[in-house]
Amino acid sequence: MRGSKLVNRIGNAFAALVGAALLAAPAAAEDGYDLWLRYAPLEGEAREILAGLSLHPDVPDELVSDPTIAVAVAELERGIGSLIGESRTTPQTRFDIDFDCRNEDVGGIPGAYRIARLSGGDGLALTAPDSGGCLYGTFALLRELSLGQDPRVVDLVSAPAMPLRMLNHWDNPDGHVERGYAGRSIFDWWHLPERLDERMIDYARANASIGINGVVVNNVNARAFMLEPRYIAKYKRLADAWRPFGIRLYVSARFSAPQDIGGLETSDPLDPAVRAWWKAKADEFYRAVPDFGGFLVKANSEGQPGPQDYDRTHADGANMLAEAVGNRGTIIWRAFVYSETDETDRAKQAYAEFVPLDGQFADNVIIQVKNGPLDFQPREPFHPMFGAMPNTKLMLETQITKEYLGFASHLAFLAPMWSEVLEAETGRGGTVAEVVAPAGIAGVANTGSDRNWSGSDFDQANWYALGRLAWDPSLSSERIAREWAVQTFTRNPQAVETIAKMMLDSREAVVRYMTPLGLAHLMATGHHYGPAPWVCDLDRPEWNPCYYHRADADGIGFDRTASGSNALSQYADSVAARWADPQTIDREYLLWFHHVDWNARMHSGQTLWEELVREYDRGISEVDAMAEAWNGLAAAVDPQRHRAVAENLAIQQGEARWWRNASIAYWRSLNGLPMPEGAAPPPETLEEYKARSFPEAPGQ
Amino acid sequence: MRGSKLVNRIGNAFAALVGAALLAAPAAAEDGYDLWLRYAPLEGEAREILAGLSLHPDVPDELVSDPTIAVAVAELERGIGSLIGESRTTPQTRFDIDFDCRNEDVGGIPGAYRIARLSGGDGLALTAPDSGGCLYGTFALLRELSLGQDPRVVDLVSAPAMPLRMLNHWDNPDGHVERGYAGRSIFDWWHLPERLDERMIDYARANASIGINGVVVNNVNARAFMLEPRYIAKYKRLADAWRPFGIRLYVSARFSAPQDIGGLETSDPLDPAVRAWWKAKADEFYRAVPDFGGFLVKANSEGQPGPQDYDRTHADGANMLAEAVGNRGTIIWRAFVYSETDETDRAKQAYAEFVPLDGQFADNVIIQVKNGPLDFQPREPFHPMFGAMPNTKLMLETQITKEYLGFASHLAFLAPMWSEVLEAETGRGGTVAEVVAPAGIAGVANTGSDRNWSGSDFDQANWYALGRLAWDPSLSSERIAREWAVQTFTRNPQAVETIAKMMLDSREAVVRYMTPLGLAHLMATGHHYGPAPWVCDLDRPEWNPCYYHRADADGIGFDRTASGSNALSQYADSVAARWADPQTIDREYLLWFHHVDWNARMHSGQTLWEELVREYDRGISEVDAMAEAWNGLAAAVDPQRHRAVAENLAIQQGEARWWRNASIAYWRSLNGLPMPEGAAPPPETLEEYKARSFPEAPGQ
Repeated sequence: MRGSKLVNRIGNAFAALVGAALLAAPAAAEDGYDLWLRYAPLEGEAREILAGLSLHPDVPDELVSDPTIAVAVAELERGIGSLIGESRTTPQTRFDIDFDCRNEDVGGIPGAYRIARLSGGDGLALTAPDSGGCLYGTFALLRELSLGQDPRVVDLVSAPAMPLRMLNHWDNPDGHVERGYAGRSIFDWWHLPERLDERMIDYARANASIGINGVVVNNVNARAFMLEPRYIAKYKRLADAWRPFGIRLYVSARFSAPQDIGGLETSDPLDPAVRAWWKAKADEFYRAVPDFGGFLVKANSEGQPGPQDYDRTHADGANMLAEAVGNRGTIIWRAFVYSETDETDRAKQAYAEFVPLDGQFADNVIIQVKNGPLDFQPREPFHPMFGAMPNTKLMLETQITKEYLGFASHLAFLAPMWSEVLEAETGRGGTVAEVVAPAGIAGVANTGSDRNWSGSDFDQANWYALGRLAWDPSLSSERIAREWAVQTFTRNPQAVETIAKMMLDSREAVVRYMTPLGLAHLMATGHHYGPAPWVCDLDRPEWNPCYYHRADADGIGFDRTASGSNALSQYADSVAARWADPQTIDREYLLWFHHVDWNARMHSGQTLWEELVREYDRGISEVDAMAEAWNGLAAAVDPQRHRAVAENLAIQQGEARWWRNASIAYWRSLNGLPMPEGAAPPPETLEEYKARSFPEAPGQ
Repeated sequence: MRGSKLVNRIGNAFAALVGAALLAAPAAAEDGYDLWLRYAPLEGEAREILAGLSLHPDVPDELVSDPTIAVAVAELERGIGSLIGESRTTPQTRFDIDFDCRNEDVGGIPGAYRIARLSGGDGLALTAPDSGGCLYGTFALLRELSLGQDPRVVDLVSAPAMPLRMLNHWDNPDGHVERGYAGRSIFDWWHLPERLDERMIDYARANASIGINGVVVNNVNARAFMLEPRYIAKYKRLADAWRPFGIRLYVSARFSAPQDIGGLETSDPLDPAVRAWWKAKADEFYRAVPDFGGFLVKANSEGQPGPQDYDRTHADGANMLAEAVGNRGTIIWRAFVYSETDETDRAKQAYAEFVPLDGQFADNVIIQVKNGPLDFQPREPFHPMFGAMPNTKLMLETQITKEYLGFASHLAFLAPMWSEVLEAETGRGGTVAEVVAPAGIAGVANTGSDRNWSGSDFDQANWYALGRLAWDPSLSSERIAREWAVQTFTRNPQAVETIAKMMLDSREAVVRYMTPLGLAHLMATGHHYGPAPWVCDLDRPEWNPCYYHRADADGIGFDRTASGSNALSQYADSVAARWADPQTIDREYLLWFHHVDWNARMHSGQTLWEELVREYDRGISEVDAMAEAWNGLAAAVDPQRHRAVAENLAIQQGEARWWRNASIAYWRSLNGLPMPEGAAPPPETLEEYKARSFPEAPGQ
């Protein structure tokens, strides 16, 4: 009596706990580690159809020993086994998947694939020019099946839009990740080459599944000792593990390495001894890693050494390294430069330094250009270098990690931001996507030791989106959000609808509560956590938020027109014309290019001040809406991840208000204006906002 | 034809890959995260017996809403569900587990429990004086079941040997772990209190399962800002989550906090304003965390502030804090002190400073004393303070993280080292275990963000052993090794035999290849990675390895007898007498207490030099034997963890040789002796060993 009665009462008392307990295994599997490769069991008809097929990967003799094909077939087995789930029914129909991976019909583009009905037989033909294409096709097929597609009607043809689809890791050898918000580095240099963390395999799987084919394993602020033999041995172990997944390894090189570790007197790129040293170093790399991708270099920027230390040009430096690697690899040279001495608008410097060098770079040099002319802000206009160097390969550098968008705790889906840039019409022969097509796209990785890889579940979507857009820049953000949400969270249609909407609105919300109407770089010094528009006392002018917002009693904004820095002149006339007039410029770039009176009338009929405050408040209500929407999904998402996301959204709600209130308190200290009708004044004083300090902020 | 034929061929081609793939879920679960709480499904008769019972946790009304009981019943459900595994058979017999958790029969010791046959009914009676006892009893029952015990005959009675069973985390607020080799801190201060990582619950479960009931969450080298309100809010969230698991939260306090964050002019413990500040601070803690454990303090040691800065004693400092927390909590005061000015043998300083203060400490002060007088070396004699302060509560401080024993990659099971100390006869009224029984044991944690928690699978065993020995110091290392191996790796008897032997031999092997015959502190400067016995040029004498080995052309070892530093005189006469004579001293302490000629004859008939070299070589062959034994277990252990351990053992094999060769090369540079008969000379020159540098070594 007593017992049974109590079992029930206990049942109620901690249903949640026990629930979590009994589901131990699956619950643990829902810590986000599986990313978008969960292959959650299908239900209903979709499951019956798949379970009814007896799958035969049909691999021709000459491919049986191909490691990439082995990976593809293993992934197929793993994925389909998981999609069918425990209760396998005995399949009725044999279903061949014909691996035809040396077929030029698809066009010679490496990695391209076609999946079509198998002619004369039940099954699918997976056709590709190379093994990589068959691997990408396999992941594409599994994605379709995860989305509930009937395998018998899958019909896909796809080719990557650009050859280089990369992740750049700003990971230091001591495990610290610069601008990392997901724990420690995933690279265990300390134990390599002897110990290879299983995570390195899962990392390669995840990248291959979205088409990423290159990884720069160390910070662009590079340590020279990472070019020493003991590290080359570590790279070899990694490269060997990644090769079957179609991933080539790249290393960031410190330009002064010939002096730092080579014992030379100089690192002058025109010095024969220096050239010989780099040639020998490159040979050393290629002996260990025959498909070594090449070197990424940050030179003469933020204190890094470079060719200008010897009065040589970026071309002199890049070409010297290009000669060292020869046709075996690529030199990726960053255009993110600004000099400690140059007093001109920082947004103009990269263009000014590089455009005159157009045509002077070797064929195996690629210039890596950030999406905007400043530094990964929530919104920037596209970088004026795109289209301005027709005789130079340019690739797009984006930041997946959210240095300026709230770190890991703010939800900000970045696909819309990247599409905004990729689709931007340069006015000089095409969109940014078309300009970078011969080279590629790089994303600064957001991975770390956190179990969910990215520090938050939703930040996984940015990793996913970077890969998908690099493969196909024409993919819509909505498509990417939906397919990611289904694979990552749930197939419940209402839930997918809700999640996709949250994602699609999220980045604009961040722009609104942090840097609305074209404002930029108002973040706190160093760690960039939280608002500090008041900072104006740092040594270099361009380190100060006040340098960027130029706010005073009369107005706010950076005049980059002819009457100001004239950064606008770096754009094509057609583009410049659109942005030159504060009346006609796209509203979101207004204060980027113009200094505007607080009381200027906007199209809305409101003053700039009123509209600015309204933007902040709209950003906050959009975050509140995301939080409310997510709370409604408790039934559709596993408890562990639902709680984690809900707690992040609570942080974002609080910090959005902090941004709004601290910014408004500061603007009012300058313009002395009353709060607009119906807008609440900041609850704390400006001094209180200024007093907040975070000595332990991550990622510095 | 072709298809099916190939399926087979492929089957061979990547059987392993596919194997891993199809087992995806379980394989992923075998990344070590589950620790010793895997509850791997039983097989054969044990499973049939358990599956045949319909379990009824029988909880009296007054306990139904007790969170600790809820945790216990949930764990029981989880554990038994997992031990039975998927294929549940319909149970025949009802089997009650009667939670009787307010029963004084077991004796009033908090946490004690008895599990016995239920009188008059099929089932077990779980009897305890408190809910904690029922939780510990539940974990004990699950351990028995995991070991294959028939639930119907389980008969256990147990009580903790000491009240405080703690982990000390040397975790900094920025996520760096001092002497941590398992990644980043598990404490996500940055997102607390808003976000509570699920890992914090799993951490509490693991601790509760081995009886740990106290956690110091931050580094003894403490930052004062961790006493600020924003951190107290974080502690509250953690403490609320841990309370049901019987874990109290403690914080390391910086002694100069009244000045650092309190705005006072002084931190003099006798200053009324300082006393008032600490009282108010303690009240602030207890308002947020009613069961806050108290403060841990490292004072006047290695540059930390303390009462001696004001010519006050350790007692003055500790008692001031003791008064502030009052009967609500405990002050744990570290005895690890050595002054930058004191020229006497460092091994003597703690005793000299603290023993005269015996009887002057408040009742709620505990002095935390390291196992040995130096600093967590592979082997030290027990600390002379044990037994020397009969009127003061002393607790034992051990280091679970292997700062001086090869970091995370060397296999060294530390239970034998800790038992060696706990069982040591102080000659002053009992063993060390008896001396610390009124207080407790603390272990410096080895946890981190690595998925396996400890940086290596075998290092989990040291966390486990610390908890088990703190609960019952009389447990044999063999018993602990066996029960850990069964719960963690496999129930295969031969495999358990092999694993236990590896563990039991491992620590002695490390002593042999690093610091044989009583040598100590020969590790490289700062990071303590690898050998550097030659270092002799650091500012402070006691920072130099040469200070500890005192080797010269004639001999080696630190004379701590009357003819030397006479540290020996700090021990009881009975102990000192045993160690005073190089002829009769335990061989493993020889060079700790004596300077011995290289050519002195040992009992073995060999010279000291010959025996020293033989020790190094024996250490290496023991590591080789571990590696070979492990390779034989490929079938008994899951592939992911088997590979990880095998790769660590390969590292250990290489580094054992490094230790042996570098040390011998250096000793020979002093004594000029030839290699003993049959011993291989070091393959590299002393200069080459000296040249190795590791700027990125972890844990500093």
